[in-house]
Amino acid sequence: MPRVVVDVVLKPEISDPQGQAVLGALGRLGHRGVTGVRQGKHFVLDVEGTPDEAELREIAENLLANPVIEDVELHLEAVRPPTPSQG
Amino acid sequence: MPRVVVDVVLKPEISDPQGQAVLGALGRLGHRGVTGVRQGKHFVLDVEGTPDEAELREIAENLLANPVIEDVELHLEAVRPPTPSQG
Repeated sequence: MPRVVVDVVLKPEISDPQGQAVLGALGRLGHRGVTGVRQGKHFVLDVEGTPDEAELREIAENLLANPVIEDVELHLEAVRPPTPSQG
Repeated sequence: MPRVVVDVVLKPEISDPQGQAVLGALGRLGHRGVTGVRQGKHFVLDVEGTPDEAELREIAENLLANPVIEDVELHLEAVRPPTPSQG
């Protein structure tokens, strides 16, 4: 079954208090090599049959994200091979 | 500057009420081709210098995720070319 990954991230111009909080914590814990953190949502969709990219883009942009403040990244993943039954 | 993407997802055996809610909404809106939805967190880290994968895995597994109920996927992305200055 095809797997579609949708990552929803805040638009660059939108401030990201959650990301800032994580960045602060990482700095206090000594991880100074990390200079920026942005936090978003990660969706994994199982899709029946051949994924319809236009429909998936509409789902991603209008249902999973708020198009006013968020951008989406769509990743169509290879079909996962069915796990061989143990029988 | 290298960009590291960390996706934090619930372990398969953990129930995902948020994902179930999204799945139900998609069905009601006529998107019946989607048969499963899992929701997680998506982090984008900007890292200075050469990313230390061991340190990043420790950050991902212990600070960005709850190892008891969550799994992580680490993606080291190619270095973004510097945007040419307009001057």
